[in-house]
Amino acid sequence: MMKIYFAGSIRGGRVDAALYRRIIAYLQRNHVVLTEHVGDLSLSVLERGRASDSAIYLQDTSWLRDCDLLIAECTCPSLGVGYELAYAEQLGKPCHLFYRKDQVQLSAMLTGDPYFKIYPYQNEQELFDLLDSILTGNND
Amino acid sequence: MMKIYFAGSIRGGRVDAALYRRIIAYLQRNHVVLTEHVGDLSLSVLERGRASDSAIYLQDTSWLRDCDLLIAECTCPSLGVGYELAYAEQLGKPCHLFYRKDQVQLSAMLTGDPYFKIYPYQNEQELFDLLDSILTGNND
Repeated sequence: MMKIYFAGSIRGGRVDAALYRRIIAYLQRNHVVLTEHVGDLSLSVLERGRASDSAIYLQDTSWLRDCDLLIAECTCPSLGVGYELAYAEQLGKPCHLFYRKDQVQLSAMLTGDPYFKIYPYQNEQELFDLLDSILTGNND
Repeated sequence: MMKIYFAGSIRGGRVDAALYRRIIAYLQRNHVVLTEHVGDLSLSVLERGRASDSAIYLQDTSWLRDCDLLIAECTCPSLGVGYELAYAEQLGKPCHLFYRKDQVQLSAMLTGDPYFKIYPYQNEQELFDLLDSILTGNND
């Protein structure tokens, strides 16, 4: 059982929030997802002021240090996810990035960084199959 | 004369590209902007494949190491800008973030991180006045 940091857009846009929830539920069958709230459809996306947002930042960076690996859904552009990816890379955490290639062009700061494992996908079944491979260690 | 890394969305969306160009031109009156291409309205936003995107990544991270400070326009969510901000923070580079508060909610990974200097603004004159303060060292 692994501790997974799932990264998805919150204030950058919630268009994929229901997908995040399904990914998190899929991961939770056998693992712990530290960032379960990313899939909460009623999660507030409002700024709380810098002092209060600081508590979110401290919690998320603590989870980044604590996790075994990071899984990011990158289709919806997000400053926070970009930040989390650089932060996780700095910590040496394995980072697996997913995106729907027919919908977006992924940043060259991610595709150009050999550290990241990147998986374009077309439909959810393909995504879940890729997750199975990663979580059973058969993705290399 | 300072070397400035200007960060703005490329593949995340070019809705603010003309604004980026005006900001860069403003900075260039007295300083060097390493990332002048971010304001190029004809810049391609297409992925080039991982090997070719690697050249972009190596150039941009080299500029991040070389710059004196980073200025980011964060209104348009961008994975690349989020990554660059974490990377610049890691290097200890001063980071000044601008966004139009009436249009977006900034990520808690940025507003919650006390390292970043964050400037909500409402119009371009206010933005340029803030840039003047930063570049003359009167922003504290």
